Amino acid sequence: MTASLDSPIGSEPDSQLEAVLARATFDSAGLLPAIVQQFDTHEVLMLGYMNREALRRTLTEGRVTFWSRSRQEFWRKGDTSGHAQFVRAASLDCDSDTLLLQVEQIGAACHTGEHSCFDVDPLTPTIGFNHE
Amino acid sequence: MTASLDSPIGSEPDSQLEAVLARATFDSAGLLPAIVQQFDTHEVLMLGYMNREALRRTLTEGRVTFWSRSRQEFWRKGDTSGHAQFVRAASLDCDSDTLLLQVEQIGAACHTGEHSCFDVDPLTPTIGFNHE
Repeated sequence: MTASLDSPIGSEPDSQLEAVLARATFDSAGLLPAIVQQFDTHEVLMLGYMNREALRRTLTEGRVTFWSRSRQEFWRKGDTSGHAQFVRAASLDCDSDTLLLQVEQIGAACHTGEHSCFDVDPLTPTIGFNHE
Repeated sequence: MTASLDSPIGSEPDSQLEAVLARATFDSAGLLPAIVQQFDTHEVLMLGYMNREALRRTLTEGRVTFWSRSRQEFWRKGDTSGHAQFVRAASLDCDSDTLLLQVEQIGAACHTGEHSCFDVDPLTPTIGFNHE
């Protein structure tokens, strides 16, 4: 494949994608946690997990694909529910073992029908303040 | 201990805290991933891990405490660096296996000196759009 100006990953897409996949650090089960955040409101929608192939698909298809730990299969978000996640930006953290995705969420992110998976169970922790 | 009006966790603090700790679902290593988000800007700062005791301390002390997987010890954020995280809100997700924390971050969240651990390595994924 030759490089082109509209390549998704820099000027040498295959090699740069491979470099990202090589740099990503998967856990002992071969998974990387992915935080999914609505790109405009910055609401955190959910945490999912990706294996190497799910990460590759997510970075190249414009749609978020997870690895379902419970079903042990690829899970392209929205294929069943219609509640797709369109990729707007992605970054690895400082030690490359967590992914942060900015997405356009269609409909509800949570299988409960809530917009965010974190709308379900707010806690009431002790609040801390910086007194310095 | 008797209940009081200024209890951090509802009117029966001990029992409600215990209920939260019982509901939280820890993985096979006894850990719960915790997404840390700046309370006002909604920037995602980092992902850390908590065991049951780190979660208990975080929900009761007003400061975020992780379990360091690399050092195998409690890690109250900021005790060494000064870059503390003060708890402003917390929620469990729909299946109680991820925590989302809203914090006031003092200084840099990342050990690299970056404000967020995700400032380090932005990727260039294929961007997706909803064409329906």
